[in-house]
Amino acid sequence: MSHSPADLLITGCTVLVHDDQERIGFEQDAAIVVRDGRVESVTSAADAVGLAAVERIEARGQVALPGLVNCHTHAPMVALRGLAEDLPTEEWFNDVVWPVESNLTEKDVELGARLACAEMIRAGVTCFADHYFSMDTVAAVVTECGLRAHLGEAYFSSQGPQGREKSLEFALRHRGTADGRITTALAPHAPYTVTDTDLAATAQLALEHGLPVHLHAAENRDQTDTSLARHGITPIEVLDRAGLLATDLLIAHGTGIIDRDLPVLERASGRIAVATAPRGYLKFAWPDTTPIRALRAIGIPVGLATDGAASNNSLDVWESMALTSLVQKSTEGDPRWLTSRQALHHATLQSARAVGLGDSIGCIAPGRRADIVLVDLTGPHTQPVHDLAATLVHSARSADVRTTIVDGRVLMRDRELLTLDVPAVVRELGERLPALVDRSHGRRIQEYDT
Amino acid sequence: MSHSPADLLITGCTVLVHDDQERIGFEQDAAIVVRDGRVESVTSAADAVGLAAVERIEARGQVALPGLVNCHTHAPMVALRGLAEDLPTEEWFNDVVWPVESNLTEKDVELGARLACAEMIRAGVTCFADHYFSMDTVAAVVTECGLRAHLGEAYFSSQGPQGREKSLEFALRHRGTADGRITTALAPHAPYTVTDTDLAATAQLALEHGLPVHLHAAENRDQTDTSLARHGITPIEVLDRAGLLATDLLIAHGTGIIDRDLPVLERASGRIAVATAPRGYLKFAWPDTTPIRALRAIGIPVGLATDGAASNNSLDVWESMALTSLVQKSTEGDPRWLTSRQALHHATLQSARAVGLGDSIGCIAPGRRADIVLVDLTGPHTQPVHDLAATLVHSARSADVRTTIVDGRVLMRDRELLTLDVPAVVRELGERLPALVDRSHGRRIQEYDT
Repeated sequence: MSHSPADLLITGCTVLVHDDQERIGFEQDAAIVVRDGRVESVTSAADAVGLAAVERIEARGQVALPGLVNCHTHAPMVALRGLAEDLPTEEWFNDVVWPVESNLTEKDVELGARLACAEMIRAGVTCFADHYFSMDTVAAVVTECGLRAHLGEAYFSSQGPQGREKSLEFALRHRGTADGRITTALAPHAPYTVTDTDLAATAQLALEHGLPVHLHAAENRDQTDTSLARHGITPIEVLDRAGLLATDLLIAHGTGIIDRDLPVLERASGRIAVATAPRGYLKFAWPDTTPIRALRAIGIPVGLATDGAASNNSLDVWESMALTSLVQKSTEGDPRWLTSRQALHHATLQSARAVGLGDSIGCIAPGRRADIVLVDLTGPHTQPVHDLAATLVHSARSADVRTTIVDGRVLMRDRELLTLDVPAVVRELGERLPALVDRSHGRRIQEYDT
Repeated sequence: MSHSPADLLITGCTVLVHDDQERIGFEQDAAIVVRDGRVESVTSAADAVGLAAVERIEARGQVALPGLVNCHTHAPMVALRGLAEDLPTEEWFNDVVWPVESNLTEKDVELGARLACAEMIRAGVTCFADHYFSMDTVAAVVTECGLRAHLGEAYFSSQGPQGREKSLEFALRHRGTADGRITTALAPHAPYTVTDTDLAATAQLALEHGLPVHLHAAENRDQTDTSLARHGITPIEVLDRAGLLATDLLIAHGTGIIDRDLPVLERASGRIAVATAPRGYLKFAWPDTTPIRALRAIGIPVGLATDGAASNNSLDVWESMALTSLVQKSTEGDPRWLTSRQALHHATLQSARAVGLGDSIGCIAPGRRADIVLVDLTGPHTQPVHDLAATLVHSARSADVRTTIVDGRVLMRDRELLTLDVPAVVRELGERLPALVDRSHGRRIQEYDT
């Protein structure tokens, strides 16, 4: 251990750790030493007593977890939170979201991204995978607020070849920026809005440039049924045919993945992952949820996500963690499936892998980036603690996160946001809402017709 | 309006109100005048400027809602939170909960009840329906902490006639105590643990003494199937045959209510209500949820509940409200069903009716008891507001409740609990846990065998 002061020392907490089999355990009375943005060591509180540090956080009664990862969202869509309620998917897209998005300005994206980042930092999210428009603006907000992000400029084939080119240009220009906190992906929207030709070209570009791909696919059973009726193959088979399963591919939702897709996914040469955002599937009354048990059986990581707040109403990954456990038990008809420890494995290592950061985040261990959240379990709703994993997944809430740290930098301390000014953002966004939500023009950016 | 000072004046908030068709609306820039534990008037903030009041709460940026009602719980079971995880119902009862409950002392019940009341006050619950043991102790805690409660001393037929007599004696002795905040019910456990003879005697006692009845029935489909196989009739038909549908009856769960039960319930002469606690149904992987749409079609109110924390992991009625909406949409396959306004109707008037308080709580209107919670919507996760009902149900969380008021008395102000000392309760309960959770004796209070 170095003798110069550590950058940050967190003492007295319980630390969620993974053993060499990736089983989750808890080190009590521990301390975390952070240097140069990384975890240098996890030691005992007693051993940390004499350590010098530039910044100290006394965290008794708190649990240190790897920061949550929102593996699929559209951060700026918080501006549309609550605007399209209680609608089927098609009306949600065609009658509200896509008409409103035709009004979207860079300023709206900026304010939406700021608000979303504030919400995520307060909810213990330290990294998010975003798939949206005007992503230069989102990248600037990420740089400023200190979060980690995996960003992709979304495109439809209706934009012509410029869409794909812009997505590539964005991915190459921003890759590794914000001191390495920004990683990038190519971001075709979905097989139902991007042609086979464009999907194949995207796969080629991904391999050529060493970029991952992030897209929506097999979002729901309707899309799978329509694909089968129109093309004779499923959306996953469309991806395979286009060569996308040879890339590092993050698939959003996948509730329409069916049995015949599983061998296709299993023999993929790329690293495939799926992001699940179960709240929205319930709200849209989709007949299925992400088939996590089947995906796990073929080794595919499933990360937790919220989707955008226009469908999910929040960016609360903590809620996604609890709902994933509950909905999986219910769907599989098996109360022993998706235990709290399994849910925490999804929330940590699997989510890190889903966004291509399986080697650098997702656990609190020497050498990993210091993306850490401290959760207060002294509230009456989290006491007593008979099973800490269950307390975290089923009793604690995102509001119990007191401190959020990314790359060793404290972004929220004792619930105070240090890098974003929420009232200012809300005020400025509020002035822009009438223009943003106007649908009198009759335009939409795209048509939903799977 | 009287010229003496009001007891409490809440100013500047938005107030959730019901119109004469029970439709939910929101009065902006409003004020609530409280006198003698009741709402005297809901007026405009401007009109309230000159009003004198003993206590004032400036609540700009907050929404005043009727306090939430937890329509079915076992408050002291918070002591067992997280103790029996990821188990099927039968193992949960027989291997953990009923063995542990054979250790239960009055002191455990007292500390559990205190912790539960603290949790509920912090989560915006102002009234709870409790169905448990040592209820004298729970009544004492309710009296002390200021909540409203609907209490019943639970009994099994295995206790002999003493069980039923004790339940009656409790109900008569405590009815109307705590300045009227305590109401009572007879509390047979369930048709699978209480004989037909005892159920019939309970119905007689209820009618004779003007008492309601609170029990578990048709909790899940297994129970209905077993009842049909053993007795040729459903649990609801068992209740009917015992005369219980002629009483004011609160049925917990009812996820095993089937089509043939609906006409039976519809022609009941008593006031029947059902309490739904959807989190636990998902966690136990029960195949159904409470059939709210069918129950609403025959005019039965469905109140929101959490059940005990040993199955639900929390007493968070706010989460029950959101989950009720989500699970109902999913189960009915209809995204337009159980809108946020419907969810708020369940959370307010229907929950009040479920606990027999439909005329005194459940809305903020002149003459109603002043059971009010103030919810802060300035956080980034609840902005912007396009649809206030959706914001409340799908974006806000129980932790956004800042102030909880019962009968005009402030029990939590700006998240500070004023009537309970959580650290002291947690410390004392912690010392008792090893004895409480010991199962080496091999006893259980009852056998689960539906």
